[in-house]
Amino acid sequence: MSFCPKCGSIVEQAIPEGDNRLRDICTSPSCGKIHYQNPRVITGCIVESEEKILFCRRAIQPRYGLWTLPAGFLENSETISEGAARETMEEANADVEVIDLFSVFTLAHINQVYMLFRATLKTPHFGPGMESLEVELLDESQVPWDQLAFAAITETMRLYFADRKAGGFRTHIGEMRPIGEPGCRQYETLMLN
Amino acid sequence: MSFCPKCGSIVEQAIPEGDNRLRDICTSPSCGKIHYQNPRVITGCIVESEEKILFCRRAIQPRYGLWTLPAGFLENSETISEGAARETMEEANADVEVIDLFSVFTLAHINQVYMLFRATLKTPHFGPGMESLEVELLDESQVPWDQLAFAAITETMRLYFADRKAGGFRTHIGEMRPIGEPGCRQYETLMLN
Repeated sequence: MSFCPKCGSIVEQAIPEGDNRLRDICTSPSCGKIHYQNPRVITGCIVESEEKILFCRRAIQPRYGLWTLPAGFLENSETISEGAARETMEEANADVEVIDLFSVFTLAHINQVYMLFRATLKTPHFGPGMESLEVELLDESQVPWDQLAFAAITETMRLYFADRKAGGFRTHIGEMRPIGEPGCRQYETLMLN
Repeated sequence: MSFCPKCGSIVEQAIPEGDNRLRDICTSPSCGKIHYQNPRVITGCIVESEEKILFCRRAIQPRYGLWTLPAGFLENSETISEGAARETMEEANADVEVIDLFSVFTLAHINQVYMLFRATLKTPHFGPGMESLEVELLDESQVPWDQLAFAAITETMRLYFADRKAGGFRTHIGEMRPIGEPGCRQYETLMLN
């Protein structure tokens, strides 16, 4: 941030009184507003249909052409489950009933919190939205593990199939930290529970 | 937002191509940046010590003088459980081990997602930080229910004591919607699970 969104003056980074972090602060004495920046939530669905799960192949960057669950940034004025259902409608044209929160992964290095919900189809209809090349119901043996777009999705699905085999679902909380060379997209996963 | 944080030009609200929501868009042809605004996460702890829970009396607005759990905005570059532990150190000088996610409440009308974790004290020490007037371990009968600062905290503690009586904790997902007159601080609580 270079300019104050409120008054247009130059912004500088400093630690406000009583704070312990660098913030973007407006340099205008008549404004002086402190602009906080915080992580964003990505919300989405594991849509269950009998033994299969709904996957979308991405028609947008990043990770064009790879597979993912329907998910995207939580918007203002919606709940996390409303956001998960909205993203599923937008990306997969699927009308879903959200059941429960399945996984929460923080990716602190990119200021993101993934929250993925189990959901079921209200109607049997689905198909690619604007951001998807194709949408398919896949059983576990059909999941293209080496063509999944995001590590948090891969780990969520690994936990999902393990829970399903074990006979019960719970809410998993974890984080993913990049390891190895920058940009190599390798992560270590640390679970809280 | 009135001015572009990137280039300082005037911002106007419009729906970008391929989007369906009003966004703040820079009017400068050489910039044109779209500025998204998203909900923020509030993360905190239910700190357990034997049968008691750690409560803080607020030394800051809003809700000065009322009681709450140690909690605050998730910061960039930290996980949700790290943020919960950090807020507990800042507000209650308590060093905690975070156990598991207990409740998630979306307050969509103010673009907030509360995430509260069960935690235990690593050491028996605690006391008021800069933002607290006092910090106390309270058992269920001592909780000042009519002096709690935030509805999401009240509902979280109600669920917590109910789970404890029932003999097991799980992760609760819900939302709070304001009802009645604006500003009257009355909510209806809707649980997903």
